[in-house]
Amino acid sequence: MKFNIRRDIFLENLNNVMRAISSRTTIPILTGIKLALNEQELVLTGSDADISIEIKIPVSEDLTVETPGSIILPARFFSEIIKKLPGKDFSFEVKENFQTNITSGKAEFVINGLDANNYPRLPEISTATSFAISGKVFRELINQTTFAVATQESRPILTGVHFNFSQTELKAVATDSHRLSQRKITLDNGPENATDLIIPGKSLTELSRIIGDANPEVVVNSGENQVLFVIGNISFYSRLLEGNYPDTDRLLPETSTTQATFSISDLASSLDRASLLTHESRNNVVKLTIKPSENEIIINGNSPEIGNVEESITFKAVSGEELEISFNPDYLRDTLRASITDEIVMKFTQPLRPFTVTPEKEDLSFVQLITPVRTF
Amino acid sequence: MKFNIRRDIFLENLNNVMRAISSRTTIPILTGIKLALNEQELVLTGSDADISIEIKIPVSEDLTVETPGSIILPARFFSEIIKKLPGKDFSFEVKENFQTNITSGKAEFVINGLDANNYPRLPEISTATSFAISGKVFRELINQTTFAVATQESRPILTGVHFNFSQTELKAVATDSHRLSQRKITLDNGPENATDLIIPGKSLTELSRIIGDANPEVVVNSGENQVLFVIGNISFYSRLLEGNYPDTDRLLPETSTTQATFSISDLASSLDRASLLTHESRNNVVKLTIKPSENEIIINGNSPEIGNVEESITFKAVSGEELEISFNPDYLRDTLRASITDEIVMKFTQPLRPFTVTPEKEDLSFVQLITPVRTF
Repeated sequence: MKFNIRRDIFLENLNNVMRAISSRTTIPILTGIKLALNEQELVLTGSDADISIEIKIPVSEDLTVETPGSIILPARFFSEIIKKLPGKDFSFEVKENFQTNITSGKAEFVINGLDANNYPRLPEISTATSFAISGKVFRELINQTTFAVATQESRPILTGVHFNFSQTELKAVATDSHRLSQRKITLDNGPENATDLIIPGKSLTELSRIIGDANPEVVVNSGENQVLFVIGNISFYSRLLEGNYPDTDRLLPETSTTQATFSISDLASSLDRASLLTHESRNNVVKLTIKPSENEIIINGNSPEIGNVEESITFKAVSGEELEISFNPDYLRDTLRASITDEIVMKFTQPLRPFTVTPEKEDLSFVQLITPVRTF
Repeated sequence: MKFNIRRDIFLENLNNVMRAISSRTTIPILTGIKLALNEQELVLTGSDADISIEIKIPVSEDLTVETPGSIILPARFFSEIIKKLPGKDFSFEVKENFQTNITSGKAEFVINGLDANNYPRLPEISTATSFAISGKVFRELINQTTFAVATQESRPILTGVHFNFSQTELKAVATDSHRLSQRKITLDNGPENATDLIIPGKSLTELSRIIGDANPEVVVNSGENQVLFVIGNISFYSRLLEGNYPDTDRLLPETSTTQATFSISDLASSLDRASLLTHESRNNVVKLTIKPSENEIIINGNSPEIGNVEESITFKAVSGEELEISFNPDYLRDTLRASITDEIVMKFTQPLRPFTVTPEKEDLSFVQLITPVRTF
């Protein structure tokens, strides 16, 4: 195996493959990166068993092939070495016993590699039922839901986001049973048959980073227990969570008795100040007192040891019945961070019933739900 | 105790006092900050027993006093609160039982304080023998020596930098017994009597940050077992290390048999690449092979598990006898980082004798010494 390549092109692709590689893996070979070269392309593969990423770099004037072949190299070092090489290009050659020479400028590294035949095979996923979606929209939807997945494994199914693709709509829901986030978007060319996928939150976080700020087309291919996203020359595989996702539609309240509209920046600042105190308390809970008749909304936070804070929050509108409600401020903070509008509407029914947070626009394509805390 | 103050002015001074306050202290009262107010000024005090910082904010149109008094508040929270207050100003009032109200905009915090009488007294240091030094020069000298102090407590005296002030010169030396850094500067108005101070490295790191990028005058006042640096409205106290600092002058070699001159950026890059491998090895050692007759200098690094690297380093000049020498690359990296010239000269005698690193200029006001490692 022998090739020459431009270092910046290689490094960009290497950095993307590295997202799949964890140093905490219990499978030693997965701390390595696989390089496979044929006359057409160089294929880089990384995996942590949950996620696998495969990237194809086509042969060009920036990648010249001398001898095809394949090798596994220790991923973290290999990546550090490539970053620190002195030259604009480097040459790569596998010699006897999987010893690999990497030469750039006057520096020559010799790294101990492993037989590529020992690397696990990636799943085979049919592309027969594939469909495409805008990367920008998909990334937004991932960022608006993934933060709400459960981080504890007591109910594994809740560590994933539940996607339901139909021909005209994609609905995504995440909940850790204390709060929920649901986003719907319309699809132009969804799958012919409705497709249900429960994708681990961690996979989605990496997928979102790979989609990036541009708006690439993302092609979705769903398999038996794996899903494959193809973005340009990148193939991103994730395992799927198996089981039945709870029916969350029935949780969304249809009416409300108290409503308040806030600019996100005003509400976030007040919440930040109240959290300073509650984060020091064993029960991390703020109290909101809404008095539509007096045109006032007050937030309270306290810690028995340190002290307390009380603040009259600046709001845009308030209506309905008087209400006192207590909740974890971190859930509302996450909600505000995920919101992409300038203002949000909070709608309440009773002090112990979940309340909703929606964009100021009156449509339910994005709704978040927070369960209050009993404090008496 | 009651006052009003502009928040940005208060915050800037508070941030400086916070440098003395450690959350890991074993003396609970030192997790607090002391505020003392009289008709002339507001005094903020913080301490971790090793370092104490006292800052005086004079009364002005930005600080108005209603009632003098004093209080201790939990430092970390107090500082977080001040950072997040909504207004340009805030008002501060101590009420019954040391409860302190902090009000800004529509937010009102009530914080539990402590009796300021319980705060330890700062040492009294005579200013009779004080002398001044340029902050810029002093900070440079601190940064060029402090990195070489011992971090382990087996010989406590080596955790400090040894300063020797005379009327015309300041000499500073630090060593952890594996490497040494010595810097001399000329003084215009040093102390009349030569003054020896051994100041803990940690104190100097904080002092350097407080001096900052500007060039304030630093007034040095030395006491029995404390030193006081006065920088504008800031008084910075540090304890001194007691004992005899080893005589380091005899360690500096006077002759050399092999010399090499490098641009710091070339040498640092080659060293970085070699360290990639040696950092994975139990003995973190690079080998330098200097061949003046062949006009070549080669660096080697290796890790039995990962592999090895060999590189011909770009240099400016080389002369003397052929030499092979092995050493810890991290010591040379620290040395290069502390150097403020573009080029350095390394001078060697024998493979197992310490070598020096000096600026390319032929003067010994700044010299660093590194002890090699026996590898055979």
